[in-house]
Amino acid sequence: MDETVRIKNTGLRGVPVADTKISFIDGEQGVLIYRGYRIEDLAEKSTFMETAWLLLNGELPSEDQLRSFTEDVARAREIPAHICESLALLPQDAAPMDVLQAAVPLLAMADNELADETRDANVRKAIRLIAGIPAVVAAWNRIRNRLEPLPPDAGLSHAANFLRQFHGTRPDPEMARDLEVCLVLHADHTFNASTFACREVVSTRAHMYAGVAAGVGALSGSLHGGANARVMKMLMELQSEKNVAGWVRDQLDKGQRIMGIGHAVYKTTDPRAKILREISRRLGEKLGQPQWHRLSAAVEDAALAELARRGKHTLKPNVDFYSASVYHMMGISADFMTPVFAVSRIAGWCAHIIEEKFAEAQERPALYRPESDYVGNYCGKTGCVYQPLQERGKPLSSQ
Amino acid sequence: MDETVRIKNTGLRGVPVADTKISFIDGEQGVLIYRGYRIEDLAEKSTFMETAWLLLNGELPSEDQLRSFTEDVARAREIPAHICESLALLPQDAAPMDVLQAAVPLLAMADNELADETRDANVRKAIRLIAGIPAVVAAWNRIRNRLEPLPPDAGLSHAANFLRQFHGTRPDPEMARDLEVCLVLHADHTFNASTFACREVVSTRAHMYAGVAAGVGALSGSLHGGANARVMKMLMELQSEKNVAGWVRDQLDKGQRIMGIGHAVYKTTDPRAKILREISRRLGEKLGQPQWHRLSAAVEDAALAELARRGKHTLKPNVDFYSASVYHMMGISADFMTPVFAVSRIAGWCAHIIEEKFAEAQERPALYRPESDYVGNYCGKTGCVYQPLQERGKPLSSQ
Repeated sequence: MDETVRIKNTGLRGVPVADTKISFIDGEQGVLIYRGYRIEDLAEKSTFMETAWLLLNGELPSEDQLRSFTEDVARAREIPAHICESLALLPQDAAPMDVLQAAVPLLAMADNELADETRDANVRKAIRLIAGIPAVVAAWNRIRNRLEPLPPDAGLSHAANFLRQFHGTRPDPEMARDLEVCLVLHADHTFNASTFACREVVSTRAHMYAGVAAGVGALSGSLHGGANARVMKMLMELQSEKNVAGWVRDQLDKGQRIMGIGHAVYKTTDPRAKILREISRRLGEKLGQPQWHRLSAAVEDAALAELARRGKHTLKPNVDFYSASVYHMMGISADFMTPVFAVSRIAGWCAHIIEEKFAEAQERPALYRPESDYVGNYCGKTGCVYQPLQERGKPLSSQ
Repeated sequence: MDETVRIKNTGLRGVPVADTKISFIDGEQGVLIYRGYRIEDLAEKSTFMETAWLLLNGELPSEDQLRSFTEDVARAREIPAHICESLALLPQDAAPMDVLQAAVPLLAMADNELADETRDANVRKAIRLIAGIPAVVAAWNRIRNRLEPLPPDAGLSHAANFLRQFHGTRPDPEMARDLEVCLVLHADHTFNASTFACREVVSTRAHMYAGVAAGVGALSGSLHGGANARVMKMLMELQSEKNVAGWVRDQLDKGQRIMGIGHAVYKTTDPRAKILREISRRLGEKLGQPQWHRLSAAVEDAALAELARRGKHTLKPNVDFYSASVYHMMGISADFMTPVFAVSRIAGWCAHIIEEKFAEAQERPALYRPESDYVGNYCGKTGCVYQPLQERGKPLSSQ
């Protein structure tokens, strides 16, 4: 009973709902592991294609496996023309995350294996989604600017090809590598809200695309994937580090959070934030835009000092804090920052969906069907008296 | 610790995750209540418009409130032409639930108040969705048969208008009233998988449409909304009640479930099934198709007798068991049965989304972010050694 009370209305914080073999977080120590490998190693040494294979298959690929996977993804980047025609009908001011959520079922309809619910077919669906999500995001950036979507270039890395299809020009290789690292860093993060939404939806035996569309919906929320766009908005409004200390104090006095500081799971600096901080610094110097990193660092310093003064020592920068300025310097506008998050997280979503559908321990996925406590209008089991419409006075309340 | 073990991998069965004022189920007694009112009273005396108002607002409407709501819904049935143009581009064999999931974000883009997150604006979004979902479902039935979508008829009830837009002809008034009852019966059911998906997605502060698209995804699963289509498939395959007893025994011997028998929450007959059984009988006699009710009743009798013999006394017909034949006799094909479920459940989804966004007790929604237990590859906090690609032998496993 006490346990129940503790769980209720907490958003299941701290409640393990399932076993997973995909990723692990030690929030106290600031450790993030994918399939046994530390995020720092993967960020430094791996590519997004390799990390995606790792997440989907549980081990690092051999050269042959990686080559074949990379070729499969490259082929799947050619999305059907009718999807681009559909995108062209959408209002130009449509939010890119809404466009992406609409496009995921279109990718489902284009999948000839949609009805095949074997594990192998689901891995192939994952390949189509890992290729299809960036294709749709890049196409929408072109279409809303009244430009033709560009064909993919199989000679480029996943990140470089995305930047080229998105911007229309071949990216600087170092910047492409930086985005590659960002994609590795964002690819999975245990049972976050969007991943849980994916798993929850496919626990009904819905297909992978139906689950991914739910993940896109959850990621669009300002408390989840929308957070880096809000960090960027904060940086834009602050403009200069001169105002930072007073502004931070003001925000905290008003009971507001500092965007990008603090995390539901990490009680120390998010290991991804450390890597992104360095990218933000280096990219800023390279591009002659050092102000974003300087400003971010000033906000971090002021926020941590001010929070410490208030006895809050566990709120540290999270993944969104430095990814905002990194994406901005890559020419990714605020409304495309969450879609770029999806370009990466699709790998984790698909891995979790496959785990939900084919976990060894369970004969079949346990459909998520929680309970609720009824605290509403109650007249006993016979129910409240249904007054005919004509006899009703003013209703008692409109709650 | 024991509590945690009990929760894990159970799909949160029996775990109250939140308070609600919307609906209440007594699974032992077979009682379902919306906002204090018994489902039997609402099915007999109410309309879908009234029930939707009740779910959204917490009390039965006055005459003025109901008139104004009905007019608002009628107006909102006129979906933008570009949505129908988009539907016309989709493959003709696309699953109606995939089409519906794609269309929900299109409705979002057409909503001028999308960014307004006040409670009132969310109620108006709910009105647009309650009108828009049936409009899209009916339009797709026309478009996939290469017919023009029909305009709505504000002079008809919600159910009658849907049947007319869906079939292209004015329905028999008694059949329209039967569908109205079906819509009332399916409108809400506490924290079922699709409703939980809606709530989970908007707990990130995503907008209502993003949550509803997740609900559509969850409902599409064969363990959830897809169940009545599977009941119909079973009835079609059985053909005659002669084969029923042996077939039921066979199924149970093979460890298979009988579709439509048994429910996660009800331990006795689902109160909705009793009402649908009677509609199925009456509609069958009226239309000269008594065989479906006869066959369903034979399956029910055989299944309950055989289950009782095996000591299982709590598995009884659920809502899907008789809705299958009812929808079939209304000319709704198996692949449209789940979309018709959505035409009704949208009222509950929207009510729950509003509750999630504006519940009194909580300052803000608690974002659903559960934990998982990592049981995968682990080499300690230093992580497994990242072997460079060229030095990798055959991977240890491909799990």
